[in-house]
Parts: sequence; C-alpha cells; structure tokens
Amino acid sequence: MLPWSTDLAGRIDEQVITSELLKGNPLGDPYERPIWVYLPPGYADEPGRRYPSVYVIQGFTGFVTSWRNRSPYRQPFPETADAVFGRGEAPPAIVVYVDAWTAYGGSQFVDSPGTGRYHSYLCDEVVPWVDARYRTHAEPARRAIMGKSSGGFGAMITPMLRPDLFGALATHAGDSLYELSCLPMFGRAVRHLRDYGGDIWRWWDDFGSRPPFTKEADHDLLTLLGVAACFSADPDGTIHLPFDPRTGVLRPDIWQRWLDWDPVRMVPEHAAALRSLRGIWIDAGTRDEWFLDIGAAAVHRALAEAGVPAEVIRFELFEAGHGGIDYRYPLSLAWLCQRISA
Amino acid sequence: MLPWSTDLAGRIDEQVITSELLKGNPLGDPYERPIWVYLPPGYADEPGRRYPSVYVIQGFTGFVTSWRNRSPYRQPFPETADAVFGRGEAPPAIVVYVDAWTAYGGSQFVDSPGTGRYHSYLCDEVVPWVDARYRTHAEPARRAIMGKSSGGFGAMITPMLRPDLFGALATHAGDSLYELSCLPMFGRAVRHLRDYGGDIWRWWDDFGSRPPFTKEADHDLLTLLGVAACFSADPDGTIHLPFDPRTGVLRPDIWQRWLDWDPVRMVPEHAAALRSLRGIWIDAGTRDEWFLDIGAAAVHRALAEAGVPAEVIRFELFEAGHGGIDYRYPLSLAWLCQRISA
Amino acid sequence: MLPWSTDLAGRIDEQVITSELLKGNPLGDPYERPIWVYLPPGYADEPGRRYPSVYVIQGFTGFVTSWRNRSPYRQPFPETADAVFGRGEAPPAIVVYVDAWTAYGGSQFVDSPGTGRYHSYLCDEVVPWVDARYRTHAEPARRAIMGKSSGGFGAMITPMLRPDLFGALATHAGDSLYELSCLPMFGRAVRHLRDYGGDIWRWWDDFGSRPPFTKEADHDLLTLLGVAACFSADPDGTIHLPFDPRTGVLRPDIWQRWLDWDPVRMVPEHAAALRSLRGIWIDAGTRDEWFLDIGAAAVHRALAEAGVPAEVIRFELFEAGHGGIDYRYPLSLAWLCQRISA
Amino acid sequence: MLPWSTDLAGRIDEQVITSELLKGNPLGDPYERPIWVYLPPGYADEPGRRYPSVYVIQGFTGFVTSWRNRSPYRQPFPETADAVFGRGEAPPAIVVYVDAWTAYGGSQFVDSPGTGRYHSYLCDEVVPWVDARYRTHAEPARRAIMGKSSGGFGAMITPMLRPDLFGALATHAGDSLYELSCLPMFGRAVRHLRDYGGDIWRWWDDFGSRPPFTKEADHDLLTLLGVAACFSADPDGTIHLPFDPRTGVLRPDIWQRWLDWDPVRMVPEHAAALRSLRGIWIDAGTRDEWFLDIGAAAVHRALAEAGVPAEVIRFELFEAGHGGIDYRYPLSLAWLCQRISA
Repeated sequence: MLPWSTDLAGRIDEQVITSELLKGNPLGDPYERPIWVYLPPGYADEPGRRYPSVYVIQGFTGFVTSWRNRSPYRQPFPETADAVFGRGEAPPAIVVYVDAWTAYGGSQFVDSPGTGRYHSYLCDEVVPWVDARYRTHAEPARRAIMGKSSGGFGAMITPMLRPDLFGALATHAGDSLYELSCLPMFGRAVRHLRDYGGDIWRWWDDFGSRPPFTKEADHDLLTLLGVAACFSADPDGTIHLPFDPRTGVLRPDIWQRWLDWDPVRMVPEHAAALRSLRGIWIDAGTRDEWFLDIGAAAVHRALAEAGVPAEVIRFELFEAGHGGIDYRYPLSLAWLCQRISA
Repeated sequence: MLPWSTDLAGRIDEQVITSELLKGNPLGDPYERPIWVYLPPGYADEPGRRYPSVYVIQGFTGFVTSWRNRSPYRQPFPETADAVFGRGEAPPAIVVYVDAWTAYGGSQFVDSPGTGRYHSYLCDEVVPWVDARYRTHAEPARRAIMGKSSGGFGAMITPMLRPDLFGALATHAGDSLYELSCLPMFGRAVRHLRDYGGDIWRWWDDFGSRPPFTKEADHDLLTLLGVAACFSADPDGTIHLPFDPRTGVLRPDIWQRWLDWDPVRMVPEHAAALRSLRGIWIDAGTRDEWFLDIGAAAVHRALAEAGVPAEVIRFELFEAGHGGIDYRYPLSLAWLCQRISA
Repeated sequence: MLPWSTDLAGRIDEQVITSELLKGNPLGDPYERPIWVYLPPGYADEPGRRYPSVYVIQGFTGFVTSWRNRSPYRQPFPETADAVFGRGEAPPAIVVYVDAWTAYGGSQFVDSPGTGRYHSYLCDEVVPWVDARYRTHAEPARRAIMGKSSGGFGAMITPMLRPDLFGALATHAGDSLYELSCLPMFGRAVRHLRDYGGDIWRWWDDFGSRPPFTKEADHDLLTLLGVAACFSADPDGTIHLPFDPRTGVLRPDIWQRWLDWDPVRMVPEHAAALRSLRGIWIDAGTRDEWFLDIGAAAVHRALAEAGVPAEVIRFELFEAGHGGIDYRYPLSLAWLCQRISA
Repeated sequence: MLPWSTDLAGRIDEQVITSELLKGNPLGDPYERPIWVYLPPGYADEPGRRYPSVYVIQGFTGFVTSWRNRSPYRQPFPETADAVFGRGEAPPAIVVYVDAWTAYGGSQFVDSPGTGRYHSYLCDEVVPWVDARYRTHAEPARRAIMGKSSGGFGAMITPMLRPDLFGALATHAGDSLYELSCLPMFGRAVRHLRDYGGDIWRWWDDFGSRPPFTKEADHDLLTLLGVAACFSADPDGTIHLPFDPRTGVLRPDIWQRWLDWDPVRMVPEHAAALRSLRGIWIDAGTRDEWFLDIGAAAVHRALAEAGVPAEVIRFELFEAGHGGIDYRYPLSLAWLCQRISA
C-alpha cells in the first residue's frame, strides 16, 4: 500500500553478521552488524542458479536501516532496486546492503586505528560470508560495489585495493579532490571551533550532551572528526586534525595522509587494478555543495590518463546538488548488472 | 542495537483502519489506512486500567510510516515518546499515530471536496475506533492532540472545532498567520509557474513524469496545490489558487477561504472551545523558514485576548529553523500527559 | 580618463534649489537641495531651441550625489545617459536629477506629515524651477519621469496624480504589489525587533549610535521606518507601523494606508490619467529580491485592464535581481525621449 | 551639506602622476595616473613643519575616484580620515591615495609581466614624487601603508619587500592563506567556465561584449583572471591559471607561484623586515566570505613566530563579512599615525 510500503518482487534477507575484525574496535561500536541480502525474483525457483552480486555501501552517518527511510513521493532504494529486476531492466543479481557505521558517523571503508578495520571487514568478512550463504558467482568479474558520497569514495577505493574481489563500481558524488571538497569545510570548522577554544573534543562533549544537530557547527565538525578518525589517526588511536584549529594553516604531514586517500591521487598508483574493471560509473550533481562534480571530472580524467578504456566508463554530470540524488542509484545498479553479467 | 533499532518499554500495535468516510475520496487515495497505537509499559499488566490518549498527526507529505525514518544520532519520535514513559517522565498514555496523507501531500486535517473528509475521519472514525479497541479514558479532558507544521495546524483547529473530543493540544511550528507564512511562497510559485505557462496542472503532470523533487519548483508548487485542494476547492472538486498565477494578485474570495482557516483568525470565534482546554503547548524555532515563530506568537496573543488563562498555556520560541525540531515532541508529549492525567 | 572619469558630450549644471515647501519639514532635513540639470550636446549652440525633459528620481537611500558613484567596469548613469545623446540614439532632452532624500532614507515622492511635502516639491517647485531656467518644452506630452525601486514607484504615481505635468514614465523594479514586496520584510522586521523589545525607536537610537549597517537588522528596519514615515504618519507626525511588532499581525487601517499607495491598486482610479500618457516603460529582474518582477507584471495587467493601449507600453522582465540593473536606465531613457519628442 | 558633501578640515590635492615604469604596460593601461594627496589641517599655516605619511591602497577593482563614492549614512573614507585629524584624534599626517587599477581589475601591487610594474611604481615613483612635492618626513619610521582586501595584501607585502620605505602597516581583511581564500573560488570558476568550454578568454570576450556583472560568473572569473595576471604570468605576458579549468586539479608549479605571494608564507622569509616595523594592524570580519579572518589569524601567528613583538601588533576580529567594513579604516589610520609620529 503506497506510500506506506510496497511489495517486493524479490526478497530481502535481514541478517546479522558477527565480525571478528571489529571486535575490540576503538570506539566500542558493535561487532555484530546488521546486513541485508537482497535476493532477486526467481532466486528460490532456480536453486541451481548463481548470480552476480552488487555491494551497496552508504554515505557518512548512514547505517543499514537508513535504507528503510521513506521520502515523500519517492521509494527507498531497496524498493527501486527491486523494481529494476522486477521489470526486467537488468539481469538479476544479489544486492548486499553493508553496514559500516561508527560512533563518529562513518568508517570511510578503510582500516584505521581511529575507528576500526572496516575495509578488511568488508573484504575479508562480509564478502566471504555472503558467498558462503548465497548462490553468488564468486569471481571479481561478477562482483560490483556502489555507493554515494563517502559510499562513493568507498566504491572507488575498494576495487583499487582489492581488484581480486571487485570488478566494477559505481560512485555517485564520491569524495574526491580534497582541495575543493574539504578545504572550505576546514574554514568553516575553524570558525565553529572558536566557541570551543579550538578544541574539537570540547565540541564532541557538547554534541553528546544535547540534542544533536541543533547547532550549525554540528554537521561540519562531525564530518571533520569522523574523517580525521579514518584518515589521520595514529596507531594508538590519537586523532589529528589536518590543520591548526586556530589559524587554519594546514599541517602538511597530516594533510598528506588525507591526500593519500584522495581517489584522484590514488588512480595512477592503482592503474592496473582499475584497468581490470569491467565498468566504472561516475556521476554527480553539477552544483554539489562539496564540489564533488569537479571531483568526479578529475577522477574521470585520471582514469583516462591511467589507460582505462573509455568504453568501460559511464560519466555524467546532472543538474542537482549533493542531496536527493537517490533516484540515480537504480540507473547505476542496472548498468552495473549488465556489466557484470555479460 | 543502536543506531539501527531499539527495544521499546511499551508496545506499538500496527493496525489498519477501514474508513467509510474516505471511501470514494476525490483523489482515489486508500480508504484503508495504517494506524499505530502505542500502549505504554504496564498496559498489559493492568487489564482494568484506563489511560488518557494523545493523537499524533503529521506535517505536509508525512504518512504514518515516516515515523520509522531514522536520522543519524537521533531516534524516531515513537522511540523517544516511549522513553518518556519508560523513564517515568510522564503519566502513562496511549499514543495514536494517525495517517491523513493524500496524493497531493496532505489533508490539513479538514474536510474538503478537493481531498476528502479527513477531519471527520479523524474525529468520527479514528477516535471511536481507538476508544472501542483500547482502554482509553474517553472523555475530552483525557484526550489530546499534537503535531508539527501542518500537523501543528491540525492540532490547533481540531480542538477548536471539536472541544467535545479534545481537551489539550500541542503545536510545533503550526501553520498560522498566512500573510507571512504563505505569501512569500506565492511569490516563488508565480516564478516557478512561468515555466508552465502559469498552469499548475502542467507542473503537476511534469512532476509525475520524472523523479519528484528534482526541480526547485517542486516543493513550493506541491505545497501550494496541496493546501489549495484543502482550503479552496469547490464542491465539485475544482481547485482554485488564491492568486492569479501570472501576476501574483490575490483573488480576494479565494484568499479569504484560506484566511478562514488561519488559526490566528479562528481563535476569537472558537474562544469558548479554547477556554475549555486543559493545556495548550505552542512552540516554534526563532528562524522558521515559514515565519511560523511569528505565527506562534500571534496565536499566543490571540489566545490571551480570547481569555484563555495563562497557566494553561506553554509558549516557547527556541533557536531553530523549521526542520530538525522533532526533539521537541517528547517535551510536549510529557507536558500534555501531565495535563490530561491530572 | 577611464575608469576615473569621462568627458561628457553635454553638460551637467549642478545647482541648488531653495524649497519653500520643504522649509520646516518634520525631520529637519535641508530645504536647500542639490539639483543637477543635464543639457544635451548642442544646447548652447541652438539658443532658440526647446527640448523635452526627463526627470530622474532615485531609490531608497539615494541622494543626488550618489549618481557620481562609480562601479567597476560601469559608468554612472549621468555618463551613460549622456552617451545616449552623444551617440545620437535618442532625440536630445534635458535630464533633471532630483534629490528627495530624507533622514529616514527617502520620501517615496509623496507628501507626508512624517517626512515632508516631497510630491509637491517635485511637482510645484522643481518642475517650474527647471522650466523657468532652461529651454524646456513645458507641456506634459514633452515631460517624462523615470526611476528605480522607490524611484520607480515615484515614477509611476507622479504621472497618475499629475497628468497635467508628466506624459510618460519609466519604472525599473518599482515598488508595487505590497503583499509580496513588503510582507516578507515585515516578518524579518518582527524578528529584528526582538532585540529592541519590539520598539523601532530603540533600534533607531541604536542605529544612530554606531556605524550604520553593521547589523543585519539595519536595512530592513530603515526601510520599514522610512516607508511608514511616508505612508502611515498621522497629521501630527506620529508614525505607525502597519503591523504589531510583537506578533506580526497586520493593523488593517494602517496597512490600508499603505495599500492605498500600491500602484497596482492605484491604476484603476487613475485610469484616465494613465490613458493620457505617451509611454510607459516597465521592467524588473526575474529574481528581484522584493518580488518586484511580479509587481511589474501586476501593474502591466492593471494598465491593460484600465484601457491603456498596448502600443504605449514597453514591458520586459530580464534575468537579474534587484541590484546592479542601472545598465537598463539608458535603454528606457532613449525610449522615453523617442516617445516625448514625437 | 550632508549627505551630499562635507567640508574638510584639511585639503585634498588631486593630481596626476606620470609614470615611466607603467609606460608600455602590457594591458595598455594609462601611465598617467590620478593621485590624491591629503594635507591635514594646519599644513598651510606651518610652512616649516614636516609630517609623517600614510599611503592608502585599494581592493580589487578599486580606483582612486572610487573613494568619492558615497554610501547611505556613511561618509567616504577621505572624509572620515579627515575627521580623525579634524577632531585631533591622531597626530596630523599626509595621506596619499594611490591608484593601481588595471584593466583586469587590479595589480595586487606587485610587478608582473601580466599587468605592469605596480610595485615599483608605488615604491620608486609615487613615494619619491610625494616626498619631493610635500613636506613629509621621508624616513621609513614615519611612513605607513594601509588597505583592505587586495589593498590589505599590498599593505602587508610592500613593507616586507621594502622596509627601507615603510615602517608600519594596516591590513583589513587582507588576502592571505590562499588554500582557504582562493580554492573555493577555483571550484566556482570551474563551474562558471563550463559555459565557455573551459576557456577563460572566451568568458573575457563575453564579459566585454555585454553589460558587465550581469552574469553570476563575472565576479569570480574577473578575480581569477586578474590575480593570475599578477601572480602567474610568464615573462612574455602569457597568463596561467593555477588549475586545470576542466577538472579543478591544481597545477603545482603555477599554484606555487601563487603561494609564493601568500603573506602567511612570506612572513618567515621577511622576518627581519617585519621586526623592524613600528606598527602592524591586522583585522577582519569573523564571517569574511573569503575566510580572510582565518587568514588574518594565520598571519598574526606567523608574525609572532617570526619574532615580531606583541606590543607592535594590533589584532582584532570583529563581527562582519567582507563588505561594508570601511568604518574600520579611520581606526587603523589613527593608530598608525600614533605609531609613526612617536
């Protein structure tokens, strides 16, 4: 009964996965994680058939049950994804909704002493867990990953690091070109931190002591802290900001650690891995508030320079900001399924 | 397991109510409606006990399953409402989550030939249905209503019209003082409609033919159309805009129909009903994008002039815009429960 | 030497006019006023020739020497106006730059006990003074008036009230359709006045005690006070705001005094005067911050309904906001000169 | 007669200086430049007295006659500067208003093959010209320089490069910390350039072919082009953008040329020059649109680290954006005059 709910053509299996790698993570976040596995229509009817798989990861502050949120006049992605298969717009695939949330808002899908081993969790625990329980084609050519924003970042870097696992990707407004996407936020953060004596931990205490997101500072500072925990934490878990919080001056060594995670900069060193992929979907809104449209263009150029063939790439900028672009996901999902089913 | 879900101290009974009054509604919207009835902790243990009840209605484009949406670092209201009772911060009450969604985004909780008989549905079907199935105190002194935005509007007007049913209310940023809340939107709408030759139905067709809310016009024009359907539809269902879509000039007779639904203007004629209430909570954010903070102040003043005693009223403006103020709801819920339990 | 200055083809005569009507004005503003009279190229060479005249009035907070202000890459209007004649783009005319500034920012070119008799000053002192000293064609068919914003308002109402003096007009983003142009400002003003206990005079004292325009409130409150002084001052000079400063509720009688000065509403009662005009130029930017594009469309419609022939009217909306549209003035000046020279 | 004009206590001598160094400049800009020399009250009465001097330079797109522009309720700086002396708030000084405008909007007060030798013009032509014609104390300890925005930048770098000429400075929202002040503009520029195929010269042609500043792109692209002409032009005049206009990727060598002109980075290498100064005034608005408040804090820190004694520095952030802060200039002027008169 729309808009309250819908019936799926396929089926979502809501499970919990117990992670060994996340046990004892520095934030004390749960190591038992929800995981949703979508099985396409016909899955039960053809018990001998194997399917390609698409891993779906989320943006900052996302967690797997966010996928249930309903916006007016729109359906959640798990429903529009189901419709792709229900209408036969793409070859059937298993779609895996992964949770990599942390108390700081996210994990960037990397291993970090500041948050936990989320990259390894995804690659070495989630993927085998899925392959063991569902009838997947387990080779990389039949496995894709997709996401938006920080999830788009994760979708770019994971196949770079693990081409043995992933053979295609889709990034929607994925984090990239950090000079443009991060530096304006650093400027705002310096101002926000004036109320906290330049100490982000004083803000963090304040954030936890009142209704969250009731101060203008909250979104920027959470993002800053969360990404710093992923990109610039020491082995002992100490988190460093990439700039002096009182003057905004970059701390070159810390900033370099961030830049080492910039997809634009990572492409050349992972050129071979990227050339092995069957499909790369890159899109973003032309007025993305984090300039990720420009980041997308920069990634696109870097891929071309790295020798990735143009026919493997689908690049598009469309009229939009950073929000409200979930209607793009079924488009990339269908495209990816074509690519990994061929 | 936070942030994915939580265990409730009480229990939510998800039901469907079949409405006779909504059958054949002009938009063809479902007449079988989801309804959630929250039963406080202890309800099952004390089978002879009766409880006051609080009806919760929603803002424009809301529908009952929206209550399940999870924002980062915040819990949905049904969970924070439960926590009010779980922590013993208020006397226990039955909380009823009502659905009055329409294809145009909402019903404003009025009877209209443009949308349907949602006021009567709420008062003459939902309330008796609840009272028949759950152990409520069925007198108005023990029944309250609350909501935000259009839901705040509904929470104001319903007790004015039916003091025999409702004895207390809470309005958060409730629609009011339409000169300030509506007119700027009319101005924007005139501009949006330039692309559609001044014809809102051409926009409506376009809206339905593409991903919704991908054009800047969408939010304003949906609100305009939706409210016009509630306030200024003819008996045959013809919907009139309160202004000339090409010049912005108000159509006085149509505009008057809107003003007749302005709580600021309704208070004097329903003074006796309002004086009978046990509690009126009014709040809004000081920088509400629809100027509803000023509307709240105007309603507050009108209540005083209508002779509503100050001790019955809780009025507050707080630092916020129109969005993200759901953390206020448990505060008003607890206050209402005190008022209708005494 | 551009951009520092330019040589004119014509000549500007900077004079001072002593006004009897402004003596003893309630604000103690000077009754000796600067006035600039532009004489077109050839004026001195043809001592027997008479010229049509165009009166140029200014927007809120403007004063005649503002015309000297230079923006980067643009020339002041007195220079671009001169170029119109220097390049022979229009029949030569005398252009009169009138000053109607007041201590509250402007006069709206009306007679008011709150500010002074600026309408009479313009019509009964400035016009005769010019006609007496310069070789004008003194009939209304050869006299036009033009302005922007409040000056556009003045340019609309003055010929309505004095068709015996003015036979053509140009309004750029002229004040009109006050529901849209004023009400959002009233909403902002209510908020600004919270810091002043709802008392605009406390703001006025504050405004005068520190660098002006260093608070966000300043622009709105000055405009509010200034226009109220023009439209809703009692005979004894007492100024009334058109709304309750604490609740935003309109005060109908005061608000009606404002509406009586709304060009959209004035057109019908001055239809005969308007039908007598030779040219009416109406334009505005499509995203004017005061919705004056919509006001322009409403005036345009009202003129048509009043029987003003379409061939007399030049109506255009162009891509712009309220600011930076001075490049439109030479266009309307040339058009007006054509109209009043024929 | 306010607000139209005012009488000065001192006197402004409007002159033209003929520059040898600007002859043949690459933009064909005039080499005869206006220059205003303000002589304080009493100058003529004490023919044997010598005075300290303060050089005033302007922000991007400023030219000396801009100083005549009048804003409502405010006086131009030459008048408020005069009032400082007229009221005896500072020891009398000669104030020199320098013009360094170029066809691209400005010169950044540097020598560049892209624009001309404006640094040398200021130091080697203007200063001697003034000293030769007016009774100045010609030692650096008695000579200061001040400006806002690009003028603040010029006021910082000129004494660094020429401590033999300038002994004090005041910078209001001076260009600095280019990561924060420039990079967001680069992002916007990439978007603006999409309409021009990534070719800034196509924009420049367009800009010159229509009313300037009627497109949103104009301000950013002019600033970009103008600053690139100053900081990253080759000896043959070829101008390089510091980023790829299609991808936003920084061009490290070109960007380094910009960074070499970042005051934050220049301070350490000019530490000795800066330690020789008698006064350094640094201020900016806390919400400067170019983050120049953070730049000011960074410069302040760099000065401390360079060993500039705290008692020489006056640092303040005040509530404001980048615009409308001219009321700060008389404050710094008075302070500078104290510093260079002692």
